[in-house]
Amino acid sequence: MAVKKNKNIEFKCSLKDVLDIVGGKWSIPIIYTLFDGKKRFSELERTIPNINTRMLVKELKKLEENRIVKREAFATVPPTVEYSLNHKGMMLKPIIMDLHKWGEEFVDQ
Amino acid sequence: MAVKKNKNIEFKCSLKDVLDIVGGKWSIPIIYTLFDGKKRFSELERTIPNINTRMLVKELKKLEENRIVKREAFATVPPTVEYSLNHKGMMLKPIIMDLHKWGEEFVDQ
Repeated sequence: MAVKKNKNIEFKCSLKDVLDIVGGKWSIPIIYTLFDGKKRFSELERTIPNINTRMLVKELKKLEENRIVKREAFATVPPTVEYSLNHKGMMLKPIIMDLHKWGEEFVDQ
Repeated sequence: MAVKKNKNIEFKCSLKDVLDIVGGKWSIPIIYTLFDGKKRFSELERTIPNINTRMLVKELKKLEENRIVKREAFATVPPTVEYSLNHKGMMLKPIIMDLHKWGEEFVDQ
């Protein structure tokens, strides 16, 4: 019983950590959009339906802190900022694609 | 350009449908807990850390409406209610396990 309880707690915490990072409303749509390659802020904003600027800023910052997204600023005129996926973020690709496939197979339209 | 835009919209809607169903804070922890087999309400409540009764009722109802979870009521004294996964929910198992594995490999403790 004690072992089972520990196993549960151990699992839940780890899954909880994952969901804290990618479980929000916008994380997966942003990550998915970056599978195609690097994007500027304005491109992300245009590509992800219904996201507002404040949320996109906040989510990108969180994804950057969690080393899923890389932010590169270039000293162009005007300044350019590009976002891309780190290895850690790119490793989510097969999982998100499987989730998408599950949706296509099982979610009623 | 039009084709690309349509493809994006089509994808986003489908992924959005998926995330509306399993993207909430509690859906995946509940589904994961049911991979083991059917559970009573009280067992779910005990097993999922920090969920409160109201949220568990609400989430189970949503998962039932989306045919991920099956609810069975038995005319025992006192009445018994058991929750289990439908095929649709069970098909999320490999995806959630992969997400968990991703977390173990990439999420800093």
